[in-house]
Amino acid sequence: MTGTVYLVGAGPGAPDLLTLRAARLLQQADIVFYDALVHPETIALAEHAEKIAVGKRCGKHSTAQKFINKRLVDAARRYRVVVRLKGGDPMLFGRAQEEIAALEVAGIACEVVPGITAALSAAAELRTSLTQRGSARSVTFATPRVGVDEPASTWASGLAAADAGAIYMGVGEAELISQTLIAAGKSSALPVAIVESASLPEQRIRYTTLGDLPRYCNERVTGPALILMGPQFKARAAALAERCREEQRAAVG
Amino acid sequence: MTGTVYLVGAGPGAPDLLTLRAARLLQQADIVFYDALVHPETIALAEHAEKIAVGKRCGKHSTAQKFINKRLVDAARRYRVVVRLKGGDPMLFGRAQEEIAALEVAGIACEVVPGITAALSAAAELRTSLTQRGSARSVTFATPRVGVDEPASTWASGLAAADAGAIYMGVGEAELISQTLIAAGKSSALPVAIVESASLPEQRIRYTTLGDLPRYCNERVTGPALILMGPQFKARAAALAERCREEQRAAVG
Repeated sequence: MTGTVYLVGAGPGAPDLLTLRAARLLQQADIVFYDALVHPETIALAEHAEKIAVGKRCGKHSTAQKFINKRLVDAARRYRVVVRLKGGDPMLFGRAQEEIAALEVAGIACEVVPGITAALSAAAELRTSLTQRGSARSVTFATPRVGVDEPASTWASGLAAADAGAIYMGVGEAELISQTLIAAGKSSALPVAIVESASLPEQRIRYTTLGDLPRYCNERVTGPALILMGPQFKARAAALAERCREEQRAAVG
Repeated sequence: MTGTVYLVGAGPGAPDLLTLRAARLLQQADIVFYDALVHPETIALAEHAEKIAVGKRCGKHSTAQKFINKRLVDAARRYRVVVRLKGGDPMLFGRAQEEIAALEVAGIACEVVPGITAALSAAAELRTSLTQRGSARSVTFATPRVGVDEPASTWASGLAAADAGAIYMGVGEAELISQTLIAAGKSSALPVAIVESASLPEQRIRYTTLGDLPRYCNERVTGPALILMGPQFKARAAALAERCREEQRAAVG
């Protein structure tokens, strides 16, 4: 008898952006392996479970992927409900596929529970659609980060050709993003929104342009952040600025 | 005193793929305006609310967008908690921006609650990452559908240039998708997965190729469906086929 491993998306950060299914599985879990960016309140839902941190935070020390794979297989041979809790959604920019493959080879049942990915949370906070009738009918999700063992990446072409873009783990590569996409034909004036710590109390929203992105990221971004780009982020920024001016006039007048 | 309008993502279909926040808002709602594809159990969470269907199903009769905008504004002037419940995520391929703009013009507070979008649900069901180290570092979400009042769309270029793609509302345009993307340089052998009614009991998963997509869609797809394309969907399909053969051999042998 072996258990089932559930690869569960914890969502962008706020504990109440977890799905009902994920909450139920955590409550039933015998053991939970969680990433560094998962909220403590979310982990605490697993009240009966053994809870094991497995690192995985950009640029920090993390448990090697193969060791995580092995621990999941071992856990499924000892427990009924094994939850692997991942920030955001498991099927976007995680290494879920390696975990799924290891479980399949070992003959262990595996299910994936989707989560709210950072781009959707950031768009909600900005109240700006990633796609908009008339101006943005395609949006590309990409990351410029490549593993040391990975071939040269094609991340830029999809971003350059789509109307809008969402860039994960991009703040440390802002210079590369800006230069590569401008060289690929994007305007240096393309509107950009940077959303740090989306959905959390410490969330910060900044508006800039593709040309100014490196300066912005160097000076002001400290937390995990998502970079959104596209014509719609200008309209939103302009409307917000206009409303601020109106409020200031009203306050003064 | 006016209320707040919450634009809430209902997720892909399964009622337990709603977020905890969305469930709480539905329980608090005074009035709910919901789209055609939202699950009855999700709507039923709003036990104290007046519940109003506003159509919005592809190709079927639907309440005109301007009328929906007006009803949201009117409701916020009479009620405290107004929920606008939309299938999937509000910020992808919906017309949330028009509703947000109408609310802002009327001076009504508005918040957006993200939902699990169909592509993430479909990827979870396929247990195949939209992005994969080494083969797919960008994924484009796009739709070939354009409104009658909308200019010619740029949907295809972003899909053609990215490693992987998720196409919304594409089944009726399968011929156009196949021809356009092959003309733009994609291989006719590019692996494609079609996920109908993702996350629901009636879900169906089919594997095909970009070249064969039109025939597949004409013959076999009946429900709302998402089209996923990219090199990773071949590996998955091959692995599944291999496992089926093994199970058959085991059953026979």
